[in-house]
Amino acid sequence: MIYMDNAATTLRKAPGVIEAVTAAMKTAGNAARGAHGPALEAAGIVYDAREKLAALLGCPRADHVIFTANATQALNTAIYGLLGPGDRAVTTDLEHNSVLRPLYALQDQGMALDILPADRQGRIRYEALEALLPGAKALVCTHASNLTGNLLDLARIAELAHRYGALLIVDAAQTAGSIPINMTELGVDLLCFSGHKGLLGPQGTGGLCIRPGVELRPLLRGGSGVRSHDRAQPPEYPTRLEAGTHNAHGLAGLGAAADWLLREGVEKLCAREQELTRRFYEGVLSIGGVTVYGDFSVWPRGSVVALNVGDLDSSAAADALYTDYGIAVRAGAHCAPRLHDALGTAERGAVRFSFSPFTTEEEIDAAAAAVRELAG
Amino acid sequence: MIYMDNAATTLRKAPGVIEAVTAAMKTAGNAARGAHGPALEAAGIVYDAREKLAALLGCPRADHVIFTANATQALNTAIYGLLGPGDRAVTTDLEHNSVLRPLYALQDQGMALDILPADRQGRIRYEALEALLPGAKALVCTHASNLTGNLLDLARIAELAHRYGALLIVDAAQTAGSIPINMTELGVDLLCFSGHKGLLGPQGTGGLCIRPGVELRPLLRGGSGVRSHDRAQPPEYPTRLEAGTHNAHGLAGLGAAADWLLREGVEKLCAREQELTRRFYEGVLSIGGVTVYGDFSVWPRGSVVALNVGDLDSSAAADALYTDYGIAVRAGAHCAPRLHDALGTAERGAVRFSFSPFTTEEEIDAAAAAVRELAG
Repeated sequence: MIYMDNAATTLRKAPGVIEAVTAAMKTAGNAARGAHGPALEAAGIVYDAREKLAALLGCPRADHVIFTANATQALNTAIYGLLGPGDRAVTTDLEHNSVLRPLYALQDQGMALDILPADRQGRIRYEALEALLPGAKALVCTHASNLTGNLLDLARIAELAHRYGALLIVDAAQTAGSIPINMTELGVDLLCFSGHKGLLGPQGTGGLCIRPGVELRPLLRGGSGVRSHDRAQPPEYPTRLEAGTHNAHGLAGLGAAADWLLREGVEKLCAREQELTRRFYEGVLSIGGVTVYGDFSVWPRGSVVALNVGDLDSSAAADALYTDYGIAVRAGAHCAPRLHDALGTAERGAVRFSFSPFTTEEEIDAAAAAVRELAG
Repeated sequence: MIYMDNAATTLRKAPGVIEAVTAAMKTAGNAARGAHGPALEAAGIVYDAREKLAALLGCPRADHVIFTANATQALNTAIYGLLGPGDRAVTTDLEHNSVLRPLYALQDQGMALDILPADRQGRIRYEALEALLPGAKALVCTHASNLTGNLLDLARIAELAHRYGALLIVDAAQTAGSIPINMTELGVDLLCFSGHKGLLGPQGTGGLCIRPGVELRPLLRGGSGVRSHDRAQPPEYPTRLEAGTHNAHGLAGLGAAADWLLREGVEKLCAREQELTRRFYEGVLSIGGVTVYGDFSVWPRGSVVALNVGDLDSSAAADALYTDYGIAVRAGAHCAPRLHDALGTAERGAVRFSFSPFTTEEEIDAAAAAVRELAG
């Protein structure tokens, strides 16, 4: 099988991840719940993962790295923790439902919401963004579209947002680990990440990095291991936003993955993924009847290529790719409804090929050849 | 080391759990996100875990088993999904902060809250409970105290709650897997569980079982893999309450654990834990200067024994037990502030010994002997 659904979850994890999870399942107690060896080991695993994620993503304080079950929970924590019915927020057509649905729910409660449109190549106009910012409390946007791979210029967006006093919440589910990110240098206030995609860690992990000074209300409340007699969740990060038992087993794996990424260097892995993405793009670009979505004039980009073949339904194409060629891709809607509308693919969806640093040139060429045959 | 902090997390998992997690980390894609082999395998893992949990806990529909990151998130999902500022809720002094803090937050928003007191043995009066129920929308209570192990009579409580039209939300973090539970026979409306304690599965797993007909608002919103073009989270369970990528790796382990529990039989494992708990209780009961908390006249009970030794601070006692005897227990406050107040242990906390089906008689006797020495 050729696995090209890495934008949903990477199948091959970083070296050391499985071993770290296995070891933790034998020795890790409950982090921050007790002072004996296994509890301290679990606490060490969690703190180590915080430190590595902070180093990887440019978060100035390890205790401002909050762990959640996935990027969706991180985005919900950021959005509901910051925004309320009386506020105004701005987002874009590129967003995943993990951004849109929390914002829509707030809109239904009275929050004002403006959505920056995308064109048929999935691009936004930064000038148009600026016009929406006055009076906004937050701008919520993706770093890279999970559908087209188009990357947003976060430094430029952060500068614009801050000019108008808005905070910048970024969905880095598609880029953390695959594209270098330094949230401090970019000016990102809240960076939400998935642990099991580009970070090459286990499922059940994700989180958000908080710029010191940004205050979020807790989404979940419960045991914290400290200040048990307080009625409220303790005010200090990370405890304010983390309730209940940590997934120390999964975080052992995420820590191992982050460790590997730090040693390899995200720059190097990014260059590799960009090369693979370009190779596939160039392999399918000139095939008659194939429509590729997105703006491939700008690099780097998310390592995904979404396309359609002739007038085939995207699900039929994906089924044929899997059944006849053993190529695993994702079809249909990609939880990005507004972008499908913008691209004109709301009905048929799109076939998305997505890569990891472990994808090989041979796999890329085989996938491009399969698309050629399918279109033939 | 003798590990006796199983009420925080079980260190030894059910046979097959580690292998299942390891296998899933090599082969599981993203559940409900794609139709290729790895995605379908992940979906199968998740569904299989739902079916086994439903069988284990007496939930009539597997699609009404909702997975969360831990019991705390399950309780937050149940409490915030059902209750709002205009409602009235009832709870007890026995509760963990994962119940109390969400309820306090709602109380601060205008919800009325009544709390049934516990006596110095951590007991509640069912007659007093009945007086609080008229007009309540929900009663939220634990199945067994995480501090004393006292078990509540859920069948009796459910009958009372339903007599007054209140729904019953149960925190089974301390009992799922350790005490037989059939939520349908007991009359529980929402049963919240932890995956990594008595269920002997990995951290990062937990959930709630919903009686068909009970409607909860979503706590999290995001990608659902279905109905992508809807503004709102899809209305059907489990999707309504599950957003983002599942922890299929962890759920593979939880499914394996549930499979083992079903084969062994929770009745048998419960009998084993009761026997161990009784042996330890009888071993420490008559030691001069040792105070044991809770009502040990009623069995079965949670497999925990909390005590204090002379006038030693509980943390000092736990440190001595770990350092001098290699016995890992939990000291201090146990995220159950009201019960500490009721027991008179708010200042010094308590030393909690908690057992698993894998605890041995030799370990029990060694722990009791260590307490005797410490008290001597």
